[in-house]
Amino acid sequence: MVAGIIGAAGYAGSELVRLLSRHSGVTSLLLGSVSLEGEQIEDVYPNFLNRVSFPLKKPDDIIAGSDIVFSALPHGVGEAYAKASLDKGVSFIDLSADFRFDADEETFRTWYGKPYTFPDLHTNSIYGLPELNRQRIKTAAASAPVIIGNPGCYPTAASLGILPALAEGLVSGGNSTIIVDAASGITGGGREPQRSFHFPECSDSFSVYKVGSHRHTPEINRNITTMADRFGKPSVPVIFTPHLAPMNRGILCTIYIPLEKGIGANGSTSAMLEIRELYAAFYKDEPFVRVLPQGVMAATGRVRQSNFCDISINMDHRGEMLSVVTAIDNMVKGAAGQAVQNMNIIMNFDERSGLDAVPALF
Amino acid sequence: MVAGIIGAAGYAGSELVRLLSRHSGVTSLLLGSVSLEGEQIEDVYPNFLNRVSFPLKKPDDIIAGSDIVFSALPHGVGEAYAKASLDKGVSFIDLSADFRFDADEETFRTWYGKPYTFPDLHTNSIYGLPELNRQRIKTAAASAPVIIGNPGCYPTAASLGILPALAEGLVSGGNSTIIVDAASGITGGGREPQRSFHFPECSDSFSVYKVGSHRHTPEINRNITTMADRFGKPSVPVIFTPHLAPMNRGILCTIYIPLEKGIGANGSTSAMLEIRELYAAFYKDEPFVRVLPQGVMAATGRVRQSNFCDISINMDHRGEMLSVVTAIDNMVKGAAGQAVQNMNIIMNFDERSGLDAVPALF
Amino acid sequence: MVAGIIGAAGYAGSELVRLLSRHSGVTSLLLGSVSLEGEQIEDVYPNFLNRVSFPLKKPDDIIAGSDIVFSALPHGVGEAYAKASLDKGVSFIDLSADFRFDADEETFRTWYGKPYTFPDLHTNSIYGLPELNRQRIKTAAASAPVIIGNPGCYPTAASLGILPALAEGLVSGGNSTIIVDAASGITGGGREPQRSFHFPECSDSFSVYKVGSHRHTPEINRNITTMADRFGKPSVPVIFTPHLAPMNRGILCTIYIPLEKGIGANGSTSAMLEIRELYAAFYKDEPFVRVLPQGVMAATGRVRQSNFCDISINMDHRGEMLSVVTAIDNMVKGAAGQAVQNMNIIMNFDERSGLDAVPALF
Amino acid sequence: MVAGIIGAAGYAGSELVRLLSRHSGVTSLLLGSVSLEGEQIEDVYPNFLNRVSFPLKKPDDIIAGSDIVFSALPHGVGEAYAKASLDKGVSFIDLSADFRFDADEETFRTWYGKPYTFPDLHTNSIYGLPELNRQRIKTAAASAPVIIGNPGCYPTAASLGILPALAEGLVSGGNSTIIVDAASGITGGGREPQRSFHFPECSDSFSVYKVGSHRHTPEINRNITTMADRFGKPSVPVIFTPHLAPMNRGILCTIYIPLEKGIGANGSTSAMLEIRELYAAFYKDEPFVRVLPQGVMAATGRVRQSNFCDISINMDHRGEMLSVVTAIDNMVKGAAGQAVQNMNIIMNFDERSGLDAVPALF
Repeated sequence: MVAGIIGAAGYAGSELVRLLSRHSGVTSLLLGSVSLEGEQIEDVYPNFLNRVSFPLKKPDDIIAGSDIVFSALPHGVGEAYAKASLDKGVSFIDLSADFRFDADEETFRTWYGKPYTFPDLHTNSIYGLPELNRQRIKTAAASAPVIIGNPGCYPTAASLGILPALAEGLVSGGNSTIIVDAASGITGGGREPQRSFHFPECSDSFSVYKVGSHRHTPEINRNITTMADRFGKPSVPVIFTPHLAPMNRGILCTIYIPLEKGIGANGSTSAMLEIRELYAAFYKDEPFVRVLPQGVMAATGRVRQSNFCDISINMDHRGEMLSVVTAIDNMVKGAAGQAVQNMNIIMNFDERSGLDAVPALF
Repeated sequence: MVAGIIGAAGYAGSELVRLLSRHSGVTSLLLGSVSLEGEQIEDVYPNFLNRVSFPLKKPDDIIAGSDIVFSALPHGVGEAYAKASLDKGVSFIDLSADFRFDADEETFRTWYGKPYTFPDLHTNSIYGLPELNRQRIKTAAASAPVIIGNPGCYPTAASLGILPALAEGLVSGGNSTIIVDAASGITGGGREPQRSFHFPECSDSFSVYKVGSHRHTPEINRNITTMADRFGKPSVPVIFTPHLAPMNRGILCTIYIPLEKGIGANGSTSAMLEIRELYAAFYKDEPFVRVLPQGVMAATGRVRQSNFCDISINMDHRGEMLSVVTAIDNMVKGAAGQAVQNMNIIMNFDERSGLDAVPALF
Repeated sequence: MVAGIIGAAGYAGSELVRLLSRHSGVTSLLLGSVSLEGEQIEDVYPNFLNRVSFPLKKPDDIIAGSDIVFSALPHGVGEAYAKASLDKGVSFIDLSADFRFDADEETFRTWYGKPYTFPDLHTNSIYGLPELNRQRIKTAAASAPVIIGNPGCYPTAASLGILPALAEGLVSGGNSTIIVDAASGITGGGREPQRSFHFPECSDSFSVYKVGSHRHTPEINRNITTMADRFGKPSVPVIFTPHLAPMNRGILCTIYIPLEKGIGANGSTSAMLEIRELYAAFYKDEPFVRVLPQGVMAATGRVRQSNFCDISINMDHRGEMLSVVTAIDNMVKGAAGQAVQNMNIIMNFDERSGLDAVPALF
Repeated sequence: MVAGIIGAAGYAGSELVRLLSRHSGVTSLLLGSVSLEGEQIEDVYPNFLNRVSFPLKKPDDIIAGSDIVFSALPHGVGEAYAKASLDKGVSFIDLSADFRFDADEETFRTWYGKPYTFPDLHTNSIYGLPELNRQRIKTAAASAPVIIGNPGCYPTAASLGILPALAEGLVSGGNSTIIVDAASGITGGGREPQRSFHFPECSDSFSVYKVGSHRHTPEINRNITTMADRFGKPSVPVIFTPHLAPMNRGILCTIYIPLEKGIGANGSTSAMLEIRELYAAFYKDEPFVRVLPQGVMAATGRVRQSNFCDISINMDHRGEMLSVVTAIDNMVKGAAGQAVQNMNIIMNFDERSGLDAVPALF
């Protein structure tokens, strides 16, 4: 099977190259780049030398020759490629935000500043969080090519931390708010140099940014609503605050979830352990979610270069607030790895294929 | 004036040495160390060579020869030195937690695992957050030597972010909770090597630790209660979550404060700017608090090696939650710098003396 | 095939676990630890959760049940295990320095402060640098179990940079000296916390250490002599200076090699390119050596988590000095990866088995 | 006295602002910026808030109002400003390379690609390495305004390590070469974002760059020749290799100096200690050079934000090669600090004025 990647020369694209080049179900890659067409990927990324060697071609050539297409382009430019893929009968996995809002064009337009070019495409696109939509993806892909809106990095980490609490009815239904306080490594800013990510400006410093205005806010909100609907619970608004940490990879979300009265049992340890067990049970068949043993705290360093989402569970001493901490590699489970996981589901591969890395501590 | 430092060879102690050695009101230093007595401070810290040169002596010698005594010892071992200083008629500034709880021995015992050795000392000790207690320190020190419980690093950053909101009556009085989500650099762990702070274990990783169990929780709680009392407002419980960031210095606190109904005006920008103005007005005479201009976000890198506390203000789009972000250098405003500030107040020096560093961006 | 690892809980040991757990020829692992016997490896390294799960057993149990034994113990304690392995008929790959000097007990004693316990074992041990000794290892292993002295990290990077120059007769035979100026990441210091590797002491700083006294000096010297002998050239003494860089993984060696008269052609570019071609030709069949294209400079970040040794070639403008820069991951090609490569040779596996990682840029 | 800075918004310029704003002899600053004219420096660098507040003006305004002018512009654009300053009767300290080669226009043209615009200006300019040219600067400035070519960062660190060896006749006069192997922090690349200094491209990696082609090579060579001439010794060519280390500040140079026969006494420790004493004696009156005690190795972290140059001395075990390691803060002694030191000399201030920072370890 030939996998095609449009936008292969960006950071998310290069991670796709890294992962797919060792995927047992992928026989070859077709790499596309608008700006670097004609170059070799291993000249752009000399770390690939002797392992990966492909020319960068025009996006159209990618679609023409691929059995599945990944798009790692910026927001707002990929719809035409999605259409071309579908027309050709090939599934399309989009790592940008273009297909994350399905029919809700208004939210997309509000936050991303442009309307849909092909609104029809969005009526059947699927939000590619496998822990939420695996079955929908599987079913849809069984009968026709699909468009997957691959989730954002923060929304992935946030949603996986909130999902079991919503599903199990732990979340206070009253006038409550979920707070997602998150930190990201700097690869999240992409490959193009800019002042905020210039080494001397961000090294050895921890900062907050885009308070209340980060585009992942509506995506997290939407996921909470979807999940609440799915389990017949009331939705809860979210406040999302991103921070920048002086490291390359990783996202850590500390999620404050107000507990429904009584569940916290005034802060008893056993109530907290029970909640931990609920989380562990909820995710017991998930190949990439690790509910950490009591006493082990989530750390981005432990999921480095892996598709894992680590989760540690705590509760305040009054039993009113659950604090769930999730850690992912923003470039893997937060981008390229999750895209490969979606491909595995679409293609009926083992979901772990190409994603079986053993995380190194350092 | 001779300033004495007990525990001069630890990280906080060495910062005191650095700051006091250039303080215009300090003619000489007396340095004490239990474990390294007999060595020279510049052999322990060769960065001091050609600038600072003092022998490390027994703590008793320090008290005997000093006009003011700083103690940068671990928790639980400094009370006797405080007593000796007071008996000698000399003020004592303690950077440990021993004098941060004044008469509330129970809280101290619960969280630090030991009773007070000299309970009487704690009836007149003063919590050394100048922005809260400047006048009390000044008045007390005018008539007798004082004991200062120098605040913890997280409580300093948290309390300065909450104080104006409490004083101005912005905080929702209902069944609300303040959340302090914080990240610290690794110098906060002190000079003694341990696995958590071993470079390969913490570099390039962001992690959460001591969720719900960090000893700064009761100190923050106590500060909120004190501040609420001071301004005749109801107190609000706090949830505090510390994280470890891969950098040397700095603490950043993101503080979520539920707003009293109406104040947020459904998220209008003007309401938010008004709150920002309240903060700016509240701190307008404070030499070390900078309420940042709109659009400038707090970052630890901008207060490096300075005694500043930077504050940026935001509000969620519904106007229900204020998010205040504060940044300090944990070793300066969070420890040694604040201790020097307290000395300046006690000694009637200009409060900026020895603390006039211009922060470098890198 | 069962692979056993003694000292599995150290950093080099844990890298062996990571690499061998995904090796297609290894059916199971047996892990040994003297200090942590009884624990599970995934409790010591929670990054392994859901991927690797093994108890830590006594070293003797490892030897009893394994088809090949790796030892990642400190220097000076592994000889008895080597003997036990050989007695049992199983090859032994030692990552310590104990078997790097073969019959030259005097050098070992001088630099490591102890004599050989079992001198006989050292008469047939082989220095495990495949690029130098592949055939010797293959031949010996074909008829009997072998002991491999797995090279040190610096000597690996240094020797691979010098080998072609020696083999091709480029090195000035006169009164010349080769200088190896090298920098290492901090995992090279191992898992036990100590002040030099305490985050605040080494982060954001670059330093020199053990000038002229690092134990890898005699190992590099010995390799140069061996290589010179092999190719019938005079040996050249080496000066080796290690530095500590604020990063986790990686070694970069900048190697200054005085050129034999005439070869440098007064600094002509074509002479330099010719030398580059000699290097490329010399290593053309090596699976893990990449002579970089002209214009691409060696960087440790490009070999991260891989078994590659990258080499870039330059010459001074007078054509008198060749400067060869080599980059490896100190934990992979400099330790565990090279050990696996040696196992592959011994066991007649494809030499790339378990070592086919595609390096990520970050 | 009013100090003017042209190019105040770059990194070196902002360090000048930081240092000069606390200089007791400087009453006010005039800041110039071509690209940011009209903005306030504290808006460009919010770390300056509450400490430093100046508008950025046109360069011409700076010269018109200043008693001394610093230029921190890129290479090749400052000569006209130097001329204007001199015409106005005011000394000019240029941090670019434009005045580092004095009358040797050919070398400048070869390496910097342009001729001198005002050749006459270069006949009396002085290379501003105080340890070499203090008296020349003092004498010249006593009678007329001067132009100072402030040294490059690498040449400063390299020259200070080589100077005593040359002066004391330690350097082998034969067919020998001095090797300067150096590593720099990333602020050396300046404020403008570019791919090489984009956080994910350089963090957690150590790399070599511009081997044999860095523009500091001719400057180091020239310094060696000047120093050799000064002391009546033969000059020695240099090979210079710069590396990039993942840190903000600092340069460390490891300098290999072939010893004149006999001096090394076959590697005896006493010969090495004697050389160390020669270095210490040579620099005994220098306010900013610290020859480190035996056993203390140079580290950039120990000179952070200070004007010190630390030097540690070693010798190979055969006594043939001296290895001198020097560490400076590239932004201070390697740029702005040295410029202030030159101003102090010109203005007859205490040479330590404004440069009395006590370096922090972290």
